[in-house]
Amino acid sequence: MPRAMREQQMLDAAVQTFGQRGYRAASMDEIAELAGVSKPLVYLYLNSKEDLFTACIRRESAALVAAVRAAVDPGLPADRQLWEGLTAFFGHTTEHPDAWAVLHRQARTHGEPFAAEVAVMRDEIVAFVTGLIGVAARESLGDGELADKDVAGLAQALVGAAESLAGWANDTPGVSAREAAATLMNFAWEGLGNLMKGQRWSPSAR
Amino acid sequence: MPRAMREQQMLDAAVQTFGQRGYRAASMDEIAELAGVSKPLVYLYLNSKEDLFTACIRRESAALVAAVRAAVDPGLPADRQLWEGLTAFFGHTTEHPDAWAVLHRQARTHGEPFAAEVAVMRDEIVAFVTGLIGVAARESLGDGELADKDVAGLAQALVGAAESLAGWANDTPGVSAREAAATLMNFAWEGLGNLMKGQRWSPSAR
Repeated sequence: MPRAMREQQMLDAAVQTFGQRGYRAASMDEIAELAGVSKPLVYLYLNSKEDLFTACIRRESAALVAAVRAAVDPGLPADRQLWEGLTAFFGHTTEHPDAWAVLHRQARTHGEPFAAEVAVMRDEIVAFVTGLIGVAARESLGDGELADKDVAGLAQALVGAAESLAGWANDTPGVSAREAAATLMNFAWEGLGNLMKGQRWSPSAR
Repeated sequence: MPRAMREQQMLDAAVQTFGQRGYRAASMDEIAELAGVSKPLVYLYLNSKEDLFTACIRRESAALVAAVRAAVDPGLPADRQLWEGLTAFFGHTTEHPDAWAVLHRQARTHGEPFAAEVAVMRDEIVAFVTGLIGVAARESLGDGELADKDVAGLAQALVGAAESLAGWANDTPGVSAREAAATLMNFAWEGLGNLMKGQRWSPSAR
């Protein structure tokens, strides 16, 4: 088997082990066993537990960002873009709960270098959402009606809400990706004010 | 000076040092010096760096939760309650940036026991917000119109958005507590949909 493919198997096993057992508790022995390779081969290819964990963070960050970007068609109206992006985000985090646990919990809990790795991904998603809200605001309201600082703040709010809901959806039995996406879409687009009047956002109503 | 007062001085110095230099880089020497006491006295009173950090997390968690609770008058309409709560939250996090750095960044980045401490506070805030949204929904819509699961998800979204914005406000020069509160109030109450129509929530308009 070519090295690149072997490495992906090792990363698959590592993401599962780090996500489920935590960074500290995970052992290189169990990762090697789960990957079906010898422990020396894991060290040969990925150097150390720290480097293996970093490689997991980088691969899973890239996969999550790619899933969201691929889902958003910039030709759609802003609310549809947001809906498609949220659906892809929660679809990815619920289908890959171990990867999300690595990114959102483990990477942030085990020291600065890992936290910095995941901060890079977060900044990329914030920039993407800032662009989406900024374009929508200029199209709907005209230039400068929503200040750049306001747009930046709204993007931070939306990303923080999505992170929080992804953790909650994965920890709460019976919450599907679609429900999590719908909850955030309603919160973010309609706002609590409209929800309290019984108004809901729905993809089909627009 | 009585022991309780000395301990508060030590905690003041520790929060400042941990918040600004990070948990790992902070030394007991500099904390003792900043508190104006000897290092052995810090160890005598607070046992270890780990215990001192835990005491910081507990004190600052309690202070933040108390500030938010004190600001919210349950007799007010739901949007006013939310506004008062957000104003108090961002007022506290911007006035005590070192405390917020300890709670939101340091406590989550340096291992499970500290992360678990701060999770207790987060759960308390989520429960408080869940109660607020739940009461508002029952009053506006009637029983069961907004399912408990929806209410829980909205509370998670709101708390995640607030955490994200608090970090952003403290890292971004020129963003005041009031601006951060207004951004989140508009996001959470009006939603992006109304904001795109030029509609804003304002405390005076209601």
